[in-house]
Amino acid sequence: MSYSSKEVSSIWGGRFNKKPSSLMQEINQSISFDYQLYKQDISASIVHAKMLCRCNIINEKEMLLIVNGLNIIEKEILENKFTFKIELEDIHMNIESRLKDLVGDVAGKLHTARSRNDQVATDIKLWIRDNIDEISITIKKLSQELITKAELYLQDKAVIMPGFTHLQVAQPILFSHHIMAYVSMLKRDYQRLLDCRSRLNFCPLGSAALAGTSFPIDRHFTATELNFTAPTDNSMDSVSDRDFAIEYLSTLSIISMHLSRFAEELIIWSSKPFDFISLPEQFTSGSSIMPQKKNPDAAELVRAKSGRIYGNLFSLLTVMKGLTLTYSKDMQEDKEPIFEATKNIKISIESITGMISDWKINRDKMLEMSKSGYSTATDIADWLVQNVKIPFREAHHITGNIVKFAETFNKELYELNIEELQSIYPKINQDIFEILNVKNSVESRKSFGGTSSVKVNEAIVNAKLFWF
Amino acid sequence: MSYSSKEVSSIWGGRFNKKPSSLMQEINQSISFDYQLYKQDISASIVHAKMLCRCNIINEKEMLLIVNGLNIIEKEILENKFTFKIELEDIHMNIESRLKDLVGDVAGKLHTARSRNDQVATDIKLWIRDNIDEISITIKKLSQELITKAELYLQDKAVIMPGFTHLQVAQPILFSHHIMAYVSMLKRDYQRLLDCRSRLNFCPLGSAALAGTSFPIDRHFTATELNFTAPTDNSMDSVSDRDFAIEYLSTLSIISMHLSRFAEELIIWSSKPFDFISLPEQFTSGSSIMPQKKNPDAAELVRAKSGRIYGNLFSLLTVMKGLTLTYSKDMQEDKEPIFEATKNIKISIESITGMISDWKINRDKMLEMSKSGYSTATDIADWLVQNVKIPFREAHHITGNIVKFAETFNKELYELNIEELQSIYPKINQDIFEILNVKNSVESRKSFGGTSSVKVNEAIVNAKLFWF
Amino acid sequence: MSYSSKEVSSIWGGRFNKKPSSLMQEINQSISFDYQLYKQDISASIVHAKMLCRCNIINEKEMLLIVNGLNIIEKEILENKFTFKIELEDIHMNIESRLKDLVGDVAGKLHTARSRNDQVATDIKLWIRDNIDEISITIKKLSQELITKAELYLQDKAVIMPGFTHLQVAQPILFSHHIMAYVSMLKRDYQRLLDCRSRLNFCPLGSAALAGTSFPIDRHFTATELNFTAPTDNSMDSVSDRDFAIEYLSTLSIISMHLSRFAEELIIWSSKPFDFISLPEQFTSGSSIMPQKKNPDAAELVRAKSGRIYGNLFSLLTVMKGLTLTYSKDMQEDKEPIFEATKNIKISIESITGMISDWKINRDKMLEMSKSGYSTATDIADWLVQNVKIPFREAHHITGNIVKFAETFNKELYELNIEELQSIYPKINQDIFEILNVKNSVESRKSFGGTSSVKVNEAIVNAKLFWF
Amino acid sequence: MSYSSKEVSSIWGGRFNKKPSSLMQEINQSISFDYQLYKQDISASIVHAKMLCRCNIINEKEMLLIVNGLNIIEKEILENKFTFKIELEDIHMNIESRLKDLVGDVAGKLHTARSRNDQVATDIKLWIRDNIDEISITIKKLSQELITKAELYLQDKAVIMPGFTHLQVAQPILFSHHIMAYVSMLKRDYQRLLDCRSRLNFCPLGSAALAGTSFPIDRHFTATELNFTAPTDNSMDSVSDRDFAIEYLSTLSIISMHLSRFAEELIIWSSKPFDFISLPEQFTSGSSIMPQKKNPDAAELVRAKSGRIYGNLFSLLTVMKGLTLTYSKDMQEDKEPIFEATKNIKISIESITGMISDWKINRDKMLEMSKSGYSTATDIADWLVQNVKIPFREAHHITGNIVKFAETFNKELYELNIEELQSIYPKINQDIFEILNVKNSVESRKSFGGTSSVKVNEAIVNAKLFWF
Repeated sequence: MSYSSKEVSSIWGGRFNKKPSSLMQEINQSISFDYQLYKQDISASIVHAKMLCRCNIINEKEMLLIVNGLNIIEKEILENKFTFKIELEDIHMNIESRLKDLVGDVAGKLHTARSRNDQVATDIKLWIRDNIDEISITIKKLSQELITKAELYLQDKAVIMPGFTHLQVAQPILFSHHIMAYVSMLKRDYQRLLDCRSRLNFCPLGSAALAGTSFPIDRHFTATELNFTAPTDNSMDSVSDRDFAIEYLSTLSIISMHLSRFAEELIIWSSKPFDFISLPEQFTSGSSIMPQKKNPDAAELVRAKSGRIYGNLFSLLTVMKGLTLTYSKDMQEDKEPIFEATKNIKISIESITGMISDWKINRDKMLEMSKSGYSTATDIADWLVQNVKIPFREAHHITGNIVKFAETFNKELYELNIEELQSIYPKINQDIFEILNVKNSVESRKSFGGTSSVKVNEAIVNAKLFWF
Repeated sequence: MSYSSKEVSSIWGGRFNKKPSSLMQEINQSISFDYQLYKQDISASIVHAKMLCRCNIINEKEMLLIVNGLNIIEKEILENKFTFKIELEDIHMNIESRLKDLVGDVAGKLHTARSRNDQVATDIKLWIRDNIDEISITIKKLSQELITKAELYLQDKAVIMPGFTHLQVAQPILFSHHIMAYVSMLKRDYQRLLDCRSRLNFCPLGSAALAGTSFPIDRHFTATELNFTAPTDNSMDSVSDRDFAIEYLSTLSIISMHLSRFAEELIIWSSKPFDFISLPEQFTSGSSIMPQKKNPDAAELVRAKSGRIYGNLFSLLTVMKGLTLTYSKDMQEDKEPIFEATKNIKISIESITGMISDWKINRDKMLEMSKSGYSTATDIADWLVQNVKIPFREAHHITGNIVKFAETFNKELYELNIEELQSIYPKINQDIFEILNVKNSVESRKSFGGTSSVKVNEAIVNAKLFWF
Repeated sequence: MSYSSKEVSSIWGGRFNKKPSSLMQEINQSISFDYQLYKQDISASIVHAKMLCRCNIINEKEMLLIVNGLNIIEKEILENKFTFKIELEDIHMNIESRLKDLVGDVAGKLHTARSRNDQVATDIKLWIRDNIDEISITIKKLSQELITKAELYLQDKAVIMPGFTHLQVAQPILFSHHIMAYVSMLKRDYQRLLDCRSRLNFCPLGSAALAGTSFPIDRHFTATELNFTAPTDNSMDSVSDRDFAIEYLSTLSIISMHLSRFAEELIIWSSKPFDFISLPEQFTSGSSIMPQKKNPDAAELVRAKSGRIYGNLFSLLTVMKGLTLTYSKDMQEDKEPIFEATKNIKISIESITGMISDWKINRDKMLEMSKSGYSTATDIADWLVQNVKIPFREAHHITGNIVKFAETFNKELYELNIEELQSIYPKINQDIFEILNVKNSVESRKSFGGTSSVKVNEAIVNAKLFWF
Repeated sequence: MSYSSKEVSSIWGGRFNKKPSSLMQEINQSISFDYQLYKQDISASIVHAKMLCRCNIINEKEMLLIVNGLNIIEKEILENKFTFKIELEDIHMNIESRLKDLVGDVAGKLHTARSRNDQVATDIKLWIRDNIDEISITIKKLSQELITKAELYLQDKAVIMPGFTHLQVAQPILFSHHIMAYVSMLKRDYQRLLDCRSRLNFCPLGSAALAGTSFPIDRHFTATELNFTAPTDNSMDSVSDRDFAIEYLSTLSIISMHLSRFAEELIIWSSKPFDFISLPEQFTSGSSIMPQKKNPDAAELVRAKSGRIYGNLFSLLTVMKGLTLTYSKDMQEDKEPIFEATKNIKISIESITGMISDWKINRDKMLEMSKSGYSTATDIADWLVQNVKIPFREAHHITGNIVKFAETFNKELYELNIEELQSIYPKINQDIFEILNVKNSVESRKSFGGTSSVKVNEAIVNAKLFWF
């Protein structure tokens, strides 16, 4: 992108005697970031011109001149031949000014029955809509990758790992079940994006500055042509509203929160003492001083990006606090947070996808760890309830004593013999050994949504229906 | 609520030699705030007991004992006769312990096939669901009040006020149109709440600690009885998930953002130089030192509450950042932000409703101000485009010169005579005076969503269909 | 605390015809939380009364009556005999109203030359100052505990652990050195609190509502008696300022950030695969379903409290955004965040202190892990630079090849023999084995601030001078 | 700045078989923003080279080659002749790689006894320190401008305005007094920056990756040469610490909060109904549709920037939450928030300075409004206390009745006659009219820090001593 900063008279300078100070130009300009809206701005202007023509506000020749000029501008920008001028403030004025160069005074007719207030609201809605669509695809790909991996680790000898609560070994689970938990989260993320998309999909264009317009325009035509559901229903709300952007940032924040959790797990799992996985080299980096290091940089960055995206959300919430109706220039500060969060969430989703795609898992270490930490203690308690018919709380208490015994003698539960077990609770019999085996423990969780392979397989089948 | 803090052995103390330190008790306990979940906890336990019975895990007599005991406990709490014990940590243990007092050891069977992890997830979902319903009603009432007022100010001689952008007088609008902008915002708020409600409405109960359970439970029965859409589909996600709470807080944040904008307007409008409205005395307060003051305290508090609710949202986003699966005790810190934000949003919505309900408006001051600041300049520009057939940009430039002229001679636009106007642009004729009148200006905005009375009336009719 | 909510006429009700609505009472009252300011409010009032007497605005008899009444009120509150009335809104009015009961109309003279605006600013400054002092003491105790432990683990055979970057084993370090890193952080935290204390320590009392007063008061006397450095120098700023509270919350946020890092380490270190430490039972809890669990609840809560405190900071930052001078009721929303953050930071610091005080460390596991992961690779690179005199970057490259070789053959670096090493780089000789030993590696870091025992010991000595 | 993105082998690629994916390159690179650290990076490297030489780790010839090369690089960057390569990740590697081109293999010696971890910590501290110095200067200029204006409006006939609480007219004050309130805020801001500067001014360089180094370096020399107070005292803390950056962002947040308050006042004051000031044209902008508009864009942007800066602070607080020691790649996400906040605070301070410098004030409108709203009611109450010797509370009540009377008859207080006043309270006499005059009211506030001209003049004199 090339800039020119030669001072020209501002487009709204008719009334003004003085030019803006260079400081004002610097704080006031948005072209250094809102150039990213060029595609949306041009699309909306083309439809606006067609609508003006259809409503006989401009004639067909004028319309064609304008549309043609706009198409040329889009091509110029795409081919990097467009010079953005900082003194023209924003993308709207940069395009309109260039349009005048290309098609002459008729360019001035394009701004009939609209203002920058409704124009920018339309542009940013279109931009967010486009990016929701793109992010949805990356979420879909990540979900597909996760499901594929979950399926893989379920085949043959299913991979067993310790399920954690409080980062303490709790119960043995299938690794595939753990992976599928993220698929559940991503489904909600995806649906949140869709809800946000539906809700924002009303077209503000034609609301003009705030009051509507006296030109006999057809806002329904504009809305339909731009694939909006309908025009917005209050012209003041149309130009004052940024809650769609906040909802969008909030949705991205939740996605990034989910990814930060996965990233944290990747970091801990690839740490030496865990050693559950090995991240692909192309997503790790070395150290300038310690040549042996294989650092999970991408995972750490994904974890950190959540902070960045939360900050973007908080920025916009604060910007919008207490603003009187209708448009205030404060609202220009919506764009950088939106752009930044979008870039960061995309790269985060793709990085997680990449890392999972090529990781190596260490099934032996996972299995070994799943046996540690008295991970089948719950199974004992459940066994007591089911076989000795005592209340759960009593069973829980007895199991606590068994664990304490095992700990004292530095044994795992499956290393205790029947005499030891009966010394604590005489009604225990040999059958109990069945459930001290982690595989059996896993397979016993046959409740809906549970970790047994049959249930995990069901979940995978359902997820594939949704995601593939 | 009464507390006892006598130290008793913790319910999970079977294995422990030492009692928790009093410091630990203080940081670890949640009963001082999660007692608010008692209704949801009891409902869920009753359904759980019924399900256990239905699945032959407990027998009918046991079930009835448990259900009866739980009903007694609810009554005790409602009648303020229940002693919450801090040493029992949380609402779940307080209730279970009391149940044991009431029905004996059978109480211990209630905790079969569940854990506190899925129990608290269920409780908090139920609590949020209940509160979404309550908040939705307050939003409905506020919307109805706004619509009623919008209708009132449209009757007879519609109230005209200056429409502002940048807090500068921009164009005359109907006061009713301004009010209806908030109705549009509230509709989105309402729908966001509904979306949040639908998405959270899956039942985690029966996921147990994280892995599901080996008991032959019927999670679909539990879900249906508790009016959930279905059980959650992954037991690990079930106990790790708090994104529903974040979405809820984010939705409340947007509502409070909207209210902060209205509150700001109430404060500015009731300030002496504006003097557009007078707030009802019952929502203002005096000064301890300046007896004449009628301070818009309630409006200021509503404005400030947005900061409080944003803080609640960010607390929970940060708490959840980077947590490994599944449950971690960090998640206990979800409750105070949820409770606090809920209380604050309710009181904010109700206060705004109350203030609007009894305000006095100063229609003369509004009208007078709507004529100031060259508010019909856009009408001139539009008139030139429509009557002299020049491009908007040129019309804009000419209008700028007219304003500059008026300003130099310290006149408003409607005070200029035809010679003066023609001295700037000769093609202007007498017809232009028609549109310099604020009423005509307002009525000319007949585009969809515009401020003309016919369009505002249409909007009111539509809103009534939705809200009444 | 007991409340009465019988509606009485508000203290500022002279001009008002209507009583506030119960809704208004609910949103407007602050007594449900600002009762915590009673001690500060009474102290400030006593000094104010003395000042009024000294300046001949009230006479000595009046002063003594007032002071005596205030002392009685403090005693009543301390002994839980004081009934706070919600209809009296706040702590100031509750106390003044009770004073009138006790001493009659003379109570009305106390509010001469002050207003609630300067009064509450004074109270909250005094409250924060008192709490800075208390928090400083808890930081001191934690630092002392850390230093004591650092000293302990340095004695006899110093405890060696792996130093991590990116949670990957990087280089062997002394455990004491790791602990002392937190002492460095806490020192900055402590000094930040002191800076905050100095900066806030200017007395607003006597600024009255906003303009100062016409009574011949002596603000320097008031300031001195209340141990402030001086009176504030602008009466409008005095009642508009809450930046001291933001600075305070920001300082607490940084402390909680530090603690969240330590908490995360405690959680990871006490996780089974690491097994570096065992947390004291009195700071862990069990599971209702898995009797073997020893969950690091307190550490998790400390980690989560950072989110809560960040939220408090952001609440107040947002509340204060864009407020016009001088006092606005928004500022009442400062108190709950301040109180909540204070409570949470104190309990967090104390919990960390308690956990460290009684933890058990597993020095063998730490040592073993410190040898893994090619942790002495940097030592090889440094050895090559120092002994073979090649540039660091080249040495780094050679070391990388050695690590790759070791990895291929599944050996640790100290398991390689001289031939293997020379096959990669012939100039290596036997001396290199010296530095492959983790103890020697640690002891070689003799640069200032490094991990060698001599340097860590120096650091401890210095820290003791500061903290003991 | 020009980029090359040709893939070359990464500098740390010795051990790696695969090149990073382009996705990894994108998420991992920081050169697109950390190029801004070039000056600090080069300074620190020059000092590091000198130190290595002084300690005989490299010889003088090597040192001179390196220093010379670094100076050439700085020149290249300044002259825009340097090609930053994205495949070299960051500013450190870009410079080191170029150094190798320029001076050959000796470049590899520069990285002896340091790592990127301590290097980047040093760079970012130096960068913040430089920017604190620059921001301090802009604060000084703004304070000087404010003081100059305060002095100006005090001369001849001092400008009187209404003092507001709750945006309600409260008491008449001097405009200069209002202005000086911001000077008080800025003084605290300035001192907070200085405190932050002192606290961060310890040099991490030489801490190496985390453990210190075995090279016989002199960290005190490095620290002194780079104008640090001393080297940091714990090598692990040195590379893990970013609290200086959080403190910096928190300090900027408070500054921006103050500016947002001033900006809000500028916006309200320049709104038509207030009309207290007229902002300079070079800091306002027009409307594309309403030619008459003179919008306070710069003020609105300053107000909004507070949201942006708060978001930056929140980002970094969240990023740092729960990070284990020592360096994690998450910490790379500190830079964009720091850079962004710095840019935004500078432009905000300068914009406010510019707006004040050339504003026009409307002293008549201010004076007129200062008389409205019963602004001298407090004076009546004070007069009653001082002349009729009744308690303040009683005087307050009587004054309330007088205001109610005036309101009923639609008069201002100074329009009441003595009979009317005495009908409410007979002890009132003619002397009371003296204090109903706003000028007298203002001049009566002679308490320290009050709004009388003598006190404001004193404040100006003191402020000039500090700021000029």
